[in-house]
Amino acid sequence: MSYELFYWPGLQGRGEFVRLALEEAGADYVDVARMPPAGNGAEPDPEGTDSGMAAMMSILQSDTEPHVPFAPPFLRDGATIVPQTANILLYLGPRLGLVPDNEASRYWVHGLQLTIADVVTEAHDTHHPIASSLYYEEQRDPAKERAGDFIANRIPKFMNYFERVLGQNPAGPRHLAGDALTYADLSMFQLIDGLRYAFPRAMKGFAKRYPKLAVLHGAVRERPRIAAYLASPRRVAHNESCIFRHYPELDQPSG
Amino acid sequence: MSYELFYWPGLQGRGEFVRLALEEAGADYVDVARMPPAGNGAEPDPEGTDSGMAAMMSILQSDTEPHVPFAPPFLRDGATIVPQTANILLYLGPRLGLVPDNEASRYWVHGLQLTIADVVTEAHDTHHPIASSLYYEEQRDPAKERAGDFIANRIPKFMNYFERVLGQNPAGPRHLAGDALTYADLSMFQLIDGLRYAFPRAMKGFAKRYPKLAVLHGAVRERPRIAAYLASPRRVAHNESCIFRHYPELDQPSG
Repeated sequence: MSYELFYWPGLQGRGEFVRLALEEAGADYVDVARMPPAGNGAEPDPEGTDSGMAAMMSILQSDTEPHVPFAPPFLRDGATIVPQTANILLYLGPRLGLVPDNEASRYWVHGLQLTIADVVTEAHDTHHPIASSLYYEEQRDPAKERAGDFIANRIPKFMNYFERVLGQNPAGPRHLAGDALTYADLSMFQLIDGLRYAFPRAMKGFAKRYPKLAVLHGAVRERPRIAAYLASPRRVAHNESCIFRHYPELDQPSG
Repeated sequence: MSYELFYWPGLQGRGEFVRLALEEAGADYVDVARMPPAGNGAEPDPEGTDSGMAAMMSILQSDTEPHVPFAPPFLRDGATIVPQTANILLYLGPRLGLVPDNEASRYWVHGLQLTIADVVTEAHDTHHPIASSLYYEEQRDPAKERAGDFIANRIPKFMNYFERVLGQNPAGPRHLAGDALTYADLSMFQLIDGLRYAFPRAMKGFAKRYPKLAVLHGAVRERPRIAAYLASPRRVAHNESCIFRHYPELDQPSG
């Protein structure tokens, strides 16, 4: 039985952290909102399909489903529904071989993932500091202030931390945890990738300031399954519907 | 061996979600930053002690600890360090008997906890929409806008969702998940309690709009161990160093 991922079509968003794990593992999965009607022979559509969206909305709007998610992404595995990005990765980690096989490490990797999730939320709020219900253009001035603080203070604070985690990993700086790839490494790649798209000026010199993170980012990008995925039509390009948006007026050199 | 909770003293903050679970279970725990120097016979100090703070900072600033947390709260259980509030509750849940004994329910409860954590972050950002490095007074105008949206749109969206979760629980509306108390119920109590403190005008009529959540809030408050805890000096009062801050100018009637 395939894993079923439910997420908004047309953007990478939080769903992308889950996709990268499924793709790296070569897992059998369906990106439900992109699926053509069963049996009509069409290809999945990264922009979404009416039938796929209807399948997702019927769960979100169900008035009987006991485990009804607040929002996408969520995963369905048989009868089990798992909401929230980091929770999905917690669930998939052992099944996909993307966490070490001991309990302490699993909580550690999940803690790292939750800290990555915190950065993702802050990256979103650079363009929506006032209200997600308003357009960016309606909150451009506070967005400039928040993005300025994000670049000056928050990116360095988080990236210094993650660089330190790599440096303090007893198994070496190639991975955030242990001596093999985990879902947190994949998510760190995606975080850096998104920040580079959104804030190219701020991220200039990133590799010099955070050499271990830069090596990690490059190593994930070159993994055969990740490279194949990134080159495939399944990888939607970064765009301004997403968390990581490139608005030149929000970007500025760091430090 | 006691659980060791590490969190900033002098406020409820994110540590409070962990304290409520430990208190409800009657667990043996130490709130490290509040502890007097060993053996001097003094009582724990909710405002923090130099020795307790030093113990916490030595972990946060360690350049050798492999599992170094980004920020408090974190838990230490013997040799295991667990960072991030929701992750700590994930870890403690089965140990304290605060989650059902099946895998699907545990991911469900954790997903609820992560959604509660999202509301907590949004509640924080009502008074700090631009930068956590600036004072509230430096971002009061955008704070008014963000708080207005939080009251008009976000509290209703989240609370309608949680009310619906209670209504769709096959075991009945007394708990968010299953037929017994979980850590998510305790955290929901704390979330509602914090919102009532910060936004008394917005929360007026809460019990009418969200009757099941109001019953849950009252039932948790009256549990014997929770009631004893809330009346004890260990429960620091709500205050304006915390996530939930009462600034009258940010509060307004809902709807």
